[in-house]
Amino acid sequence: MCRWAAYIGQPCYLEDVVTRPDHSLIQQSIQATECKTATNADGFGVAWYNTRPEPGLYRDTYPAWSDPNLRSLTAQVQSGLFLAHVRASTGTATSRNNCHPFSVGRWSFMHNGQVGGFDTFRRRADMLIPDQLYHERKGATDSEILFLLGLVEGLDDDPKGAMEIAVGVLQRMSRDKGHTPHMRVGAAFSDGETLYAIRYASDDRAPTVYHRWSKSRGGRAVVSEPLAANEADWHAVPPGSFCTFKADQVRIEPFRPLA
Amino acid sequence: MCRWAAYIGQPCYLEDVVTRPDHSLIQQSIQATECKTATNADGFGVAWYNTRPEPGLYRDTYPAWSDPNLRSLTAQVQSGLFLAHVRASTGTATSRNNCHPFSVGRWSFMHNGQVGGFDTFRRRADMLIPDQLYHERKGATDSEILFLLGLVEGLDDDPKGAMEIAVGVLQRMSRDKGHTPHMRVGAAFSDGETLYAIRYASDDRAPTVYHRWSKSRGGRAVVSEPLAANEADWHAVPPGSFCTFKADQVRIEPFRPLA
Amino acid sequence: MCRWAAYIGQPCYLEDVVTRPDHSLIQQSIQATECKTATNADGFGVAWYNTRPEPGLYRDTYPAWSDPNLRSLTAQVQSGLFLAHVRASTGTATSRNNCHPFSVGRWSFMHNGQVGGFDTFRRRADMLIPDQLYHERKGATDSEILFLLGLVEGLDDDPKGAMEIAVGVLQRMSRDKGHTPHMRVGAAFSDGETLYAIRYASDDRAPTVYHRWSKSRGGRAVVSEPLAANEADWHAVPPGSFCTFKADQVRIEPFRPLA
Amino acid sequence: MCRWAAYIGQPCYLEDVVTRPDHSLIQQSIQATECKTATNADGFGVAWYNTRPEPGLYRDTYPAWSDPNLRSLTAQVQSGLFLAHVRASTGTATSRNNCHPFSVGRWSFMHNGQVGGFDTFRRRADMLIPDQLYHERKGATDSEILFLLGLVEGLDDDPKGAMEIAVGVLQRMSRDKGHTPHMRVGAAFSDGETLYAIRYASDDRAPTVYHRWSKSRGGRAVVSEPLAANEADWHAVPPGSFCTFKADQVRIEPFRPLA
Repeated sequence: MCRWAAYIGQPCYLEDVVTRPDHSLIQQSIQATECKTATNADGFGVAWYNTRPEPGLYRDTYPAWSDPNLRSLTAQVQSGLFLAHVRASTGTATSRNNCHPFSVGRWSFMHNGQVGGFDTFRRRADMLIPDQLYHERKGATDSEILFLLGLVEGLDDDPKGAMEIAVGVLQRMSRDKGHTPHMRVGAAFSDGETLYAIRYASDDRAPTVYHRWSKSRGGRAVVSEPLAANEADWHAVPPGSFCTFKADQVRIEPFRPLA
Repeated sequence: MCRWAAYIGQPCYLEDVVTRPDHSLIQQSIQATECKTATNADGFGVAWYNTRPEPGLYRDTYPAWSDPNLRSLTAQVQSGLFLAHVRASTGTATSRNNCHPFSVGRWSFMHNGQVGGFDTFRRRADMLIPDQLYHERKGATDSEILFLLGLVEGLDDDPKGAMEIAVGVLQRMSRDKGHTPHMRVGAAFSDGETLYAIRYASDDRAPTVYHRWSKSRGGRAVVSEPLAANEADWHAVPPGSFCTFKADQVRIEPFRPLA
Repeated sequence: MCRWAAYIGQPCYLEDVVTRPDHSLIQQSIQATECKTATNADGFGVAWYNTRPEPGLYRDTYPAWSDPNLRSLTAQVQSGLFLAHVRASTGTATSRNNCHPFSVGRWSFMHNGQVGGFDTFRRRADMLIPDQLYHERKGATDSEILFLLGLVEGLDDDPKGAMEIAVGVLQRMSRDKGHTPHMRVGAAFSDGETLYAIRYASDDRAPTVYHRWSKSRGGRAVVSEPLAANEADWHAVPPGSFCTFKADQVRIEPFRPLA
Repeated sequence: MCRWAAYIGQPCYLEDVVTRPDHSLIQQSIQATECKTATNADGFGVAWYNTRPEPGLYRDTYPAWSDPNLRSLTAQVQSGLFLAHVRASTGTATSRNNCHPFSVGRWSFMHNGQVGGFDTFRRRADMLIPDQLYHERKGATDSEILFLLGLVEGLDDDPKGAMEIAVGVLQRMSRDKGHTPHMRVGAAFSDGETLYAIRYASDDRAPTVYHRWSKSRGGRAVVSEPLAANEADWHAVPPGSFCTFKADQVRIEPFRPLA
């Protein structure tokens, strides 16, 4: 079970979301309170947008809490749109290429969840990626496939529609060849302008997604788990939702994967 | 709080002690049951004796459970005397040089515990190491100092006496310049022929040390915490003890650090 | 351009071949004398056979010359059959999963060379790996594909025949979709009993392969480049050869990839 | 022999100096043209100043050229004052703690050179660091000692004077206990406002230091070796110099270490 946090709004230091809250992502990586795996120590990553259209990307396989480079980076870099992730492997090898977020062009993507039995049909899933995008298939995770399929299906033009196909195709493969739970997705992704999130599952245990507007900061945090115990105003996203966040706007729509 | 396991006896695969028991060191590194820190993911190490007088040494800063090299090494290498350690840093930077076991010549050494306030008198502790041994001071931990002081004080000739001085000197420094708890030691070390262990604390919370003879394996495990939940015959070493293990012999003597 | 060395014969310390000769693999990784890339610092690996049917595997992305774990491992472990490799990436990301040797079951495999334009048809090459072996496709290199295709085509029953198909299939793909040089192979691989090597290219620049019997050691080194400048008796394997080494026996046959 | 580059002026992307010039630091790390060691692959680091008084710090032990995190960081981060370093170890272990630049408070420091015989008097050099700064002694290099001694001797108030003492004290120790060459220094350091450099040696082979004003960029590069082959206007700093760079101002004074 992974943990992630994203932010959109007035530029702030990454550490204000990633490191410093009392239940920050780093703290969660040491001991998560709502999850089955007690530790998230199989790697971490952060993608941030700044003056370039493409995000910066820093990923490594160390435990996030012991990495001085991460601490320094999050203390120095300010951004108005960023994604951060800590990973607990569900079996795939620990490798930088398997750390979230993934990034292709201006898009970044991170994911908490699973595609049931993915290992048994990974080859077929790989085959869905066309030649011209296949060089972006760098690791072996279901998460990266989900992202690449989204790109193939038109993330640029219709993010919700593209991900409904991507999630639907993999969910169908899991039903054909895999096992339950066929699909669980708590995902966040961005093109550098808008922040998107998905909460969905084929059963009744969709990974949680919360969001919260900070008036003092002038921005919104979107997270897999609330960042501070004493903040009452975290909004839980209902299962089966596609979220679009633009600074102070929130749109939450039904998310219905291709059957 | 660190975890460690050592073995002396008929050669066996390292994995029989390090990886495979249901409460093996690797399992303990994921979730420890008797300790205050829930995870031990700041590095690991193993020292093993074979045909050379000097031990082999494999240490890294990854979480032990996700390192395929460690898994392969422990599955391949057989040894009749070895030490293994997983580390939860108490503040010192994550660096291979700070991973246990430490090794100088034919000696190897590993430690679970602390010297109260060590950071405030680290320089004075370093000063106790003479020039000719100072090139072996590679990291910044109290554990490495304890080992080097032991060497200076005659580990080769009188292991118990040397460690009583080493522990005593640092304990006194902590009383002068540091804070409580002044000294907690659960340590194991070896010259490649005999396995030694210490359980000691300046207060009443000495880190635990257990040992158990395996008839089937023809060897003894000495550990900071029992390796299997269903084994009834783990012997707890009393606080204030110095242990000498030679295959099937055990000698347990009072350990009285220099006042 | 990578460098590799293999050994079959009376057990010796890995360091006798990997580290200690004046032109050892480690020295070659610092500065190679016969190659276009001056340094080989994108990772290394060693596979060794001992009491288990499967080889031990130690691979990392550090420069080989600065890794104390490698130095210790090669000083401690003795083996009568092992493979070692230093890597200079030709573009693929630095990742443990892309380091040689690769290993599946009792087989190990390492490679110096290239498949021209592989990146443009990687997906089609991946498609040739059947589902049941696809979980072994862990990285993104042409070398790993060559090995997995060999396994698919019957490495267990007919090593030469299987590799003639594997090399032939990829060479044909390169002719269809890639660019020159279509295929260059200097490879060594083993099932733990016999050591095999291939020297082949689609043009006239096949990566070199040499072998040499050491009477004092009672074993044979098979290498991509001689290990000592002052040894006159290295035998160059002619291009288009498949070599079978069993202790003191050598068989060299024509290697003719499937057209 | 290490390589370094620093910059002060209008903010630019780190990559404009570190990665992109045809003879950039990264290129130099692959194959240096004016140095005795052919490769610089024992680690790298970058310190950059931005909105905080303290610099950001990113250091790792991978070869700089294969690190995607470094590539991304230097492509994203803009700074008007930064230091970058690639390391070829002269014997000290590869460890993040031994990578340059070092940083304490708002100061950063990097160094190319050596103190003759430092290993034989490292303990005495360590003893010169007072208790209150000793927790900043994290590695084992002569370079870090040089920096910490400078801090002790008043870097904040009189950078030139402080470094004349620091270099002088270590040079004297080398004369007493070490060997020739007693002292070679090509160093750059900064407090976040001004960039300083030293070129000095106890013999006639002081490590080179060059600087060049870029009109198009509105800033100055200060380097151990010119960054582009076709740029004619690199100024060589004479041996025995202390340089002070403030945007478009340059002051070069004699550097006379304490005798």
